[in-house]
Amino acid sequence: MISEKEFNSLIEKERKLINTKLKSVLAKRNPRSLYEPSDYILADQGKRLRPLLVLLTAKAVGGNYAKAYNAALAVEMLHNFTLVHDDIMDNADKRRNKLTVHIKYDVNTAILAGDGLLAVAYEYLLKNLIVPGNEVVRSFTKGLVEVCEGQSLDKDYELKKDVSIKDYLRMITKKTAAMIEMCCSIGARICGGTKEEIEALARYGKNLGIAFQIQDDLLDIAGDESEFGKKIGGDLIEGKKTFLFLKALEKAKGKEKAALQKIITNKGIQPAEVAYYKKLYQKLHILNDAEKEIIIYTEKALRQLNRIKNENDRQLLTLLAYSLIKRKY
Amino acid sequence: MISEKEFNSLIEKERKLINTKLKSVLAKRNPRSLYEPSDYILADQGKRLRPLLVLLTAKAVGGNYAKAYNAALAVEMLHNFTLVHDDIMDNADKRRNKLTVHIKYDVNTAILAGDGLLAVAYEYLLKNLIVPGNEVVRSFTKGLVEVCEGQSLDKDYELKKDVSIKDYLRMITKKTAAMIEMCCSIGARICGGTKEEIEALARYGKNLGIAFQIQDDLLDIAGDESEFGKKIGGDLIEGKKTFLFLKALEKAKGKEKAALQKIITNKGIQPAEVAYYKKLYQKLHILNDAEKEIIIYTEKALRQLNRIKNENDRQLLTLLAYSLIKRKY
Repeated sequence: MISEKEFNSLIEKERKLINTKLKSVLAKRNPRSLYEPSDYILADQGKRLRPLLVLLTAKAVGGNYAKAYNAALAVEMLHNFTLVHDDIMDNADKRRNKLTVHIKYDVNTAILAGDGLLAVAYEYLLKNLIVPGNEVVRSFTKGLVEVCEGQSLDKDYELKKDVSIKDYLRMITKKTAAMIEMCCSIGARICGGTKEEIEALARYGKNLGIAFQIQDDLLDIAGDESEFGKKIGGDLIEGKKTFLFLKALEKAKGKEKAALQKIITNKGIQPAEVAYYKKLYQKLHILNDAEKEIIIYTEKALRQLNRIKNENDRQLLTLLAYSLIKRKY
Repeated sequence: MISEKEFNSLIEKERKLINTKLKSVLAKRNPRSLYEPSDYILADQGKRLRPLLVLLTAKAVGGNYAKAYNAALAVEMLHNFTLVHDDIMDNADKRRNKLTVHIKYDVNTAILAGDGLLAVAYEYLLKNLIVPGNEVVRSFTKGLVEVCEGQSLDKDYELKKDVSIKDYLRMITKKTAAMIEMCCSIGARICGGTKEEIEALARYGKNLGIAFQIQDDLLDIAGDESEFGKKIGGDLIEGKKTFLFLKALEKAKGKEKAALQKIITNKGIQPAEVAYYKKLYQKLHILNDAEKEIIIYTEKALRQLNRIKNENDRQLLTLLAYSLIKRKY
């Protein structure tokens, strides 16, 4: 049995190693005009959830997971490619308390920095890759296709007036969950997992990804600004149709429903109005609803782990899932 | 022996087939908000040089080149990804007489459309791909990395005052020639070319790519506006450091040199000044210099074809190279 303390120290060790490796990926590449802005965003000490999932799922199928580090770096670069381009499209000034790439540099630099990150992501994915049949690269590409489709749906929903919770789930399954699913499936593939193991870990990732996104929506309103690294209520200000918003719209009646519909019509609210809507969410028990939903998807994810033979590995993936539910940022 | 007429009809047939296949690639994919703008640019009836090179090099190593169509579509999508993003960065309103994607739609749509094209490009490259060892995908990725690096150098040179012809050649080798080289190398790989054949065809592509770019620079000033599909003198207006400009700067003296240096200081010229600079180029024999350079690189390319056993295949690649030199757009 692994204690939470042992889990934390393993995760910290791997996170540090990933950070060190990421630092050297772009450091010596030229031209600097391309790689320096990419380096700037990669140097953000994020959670590194995606590379950790590659490593832990590689370990879970019993392989020597050292083989999976290049893929772990690749998924983190792919993730950062999406962040750089999404931040342009979302007009976001800050991420993790730092200026976004297109604000620190300019939009053109950020477009190209994103493209370069994606290019180098493939380069690393392919480095020393010896799994036959191109299945790892196919999985990675499927993740990339879906994240583009998900981002496009997300932008569509900004204008669409009648988004349902089902629409929302379809969107986050593509935009967030598909990439987390991919991380788990390539980790398992690289270390020679069986078909059943690969499929189970992919489903673990997909459900974890959905839980993760709803948690993100929840933190936007319930989180602590300094820990979250973004403005609280940013989704409301931007008029985003999050799980919380759509649930509130479903439950609210009369004046309260009208207040929520106003967000759609006006494509967002003023920062000063965040407090009002937070209270409304609380009154409607939306924060509890989101928490319940997060637990449902997390449990779905954890049930998939029955396929994993080694108890310690199963537990690492379980503790990782719990750490995501409990996270503050 | 293949006549020029036979060559033209083969190329026309393949170009039509590529166009038909490209049309069906994105037609049924959703969300339309992502794929419709990509479809818009793919529907441009371009030269399709890159997919043709994949097919002709696949044929040249003696394989069944039907296997190479998915890769041919992939390189065309990769190429169009670069066009969509470059047009944003270059502030270009038109391409091939049509509005660019970010003008017809908006910048955000164009960023995502480009990303989606790249994603689907990898998807097609991997479709039914059975060449072992991931070498095809590695080549493709190397092309992608280099085109990003080349674009970054190109943007750097807009601000850099002392760009040499050597710098310029380094830039176009990455921005243009690396991708043409890649097309030839993956065509040859997919149809089982020997190491020597792959290397020779890659060198053919690289040198052809350099010739192609200098020809592009030449057409910018010597071309016919309606055939070229872009404004004549656009590179001068934008202050681009093309082969012609750098050669002119090298040869000019006194007042004429000062007039050229003014383009650097002012980051371009007014459309009304194009005629003056065209005359200056003619006086300095810059158009001839460019033509000579194009011939030098084309001949370098053609010498590589000695490795190709089949005379007809060698001739097809030779006629393709000639058609590029003689092109009007």
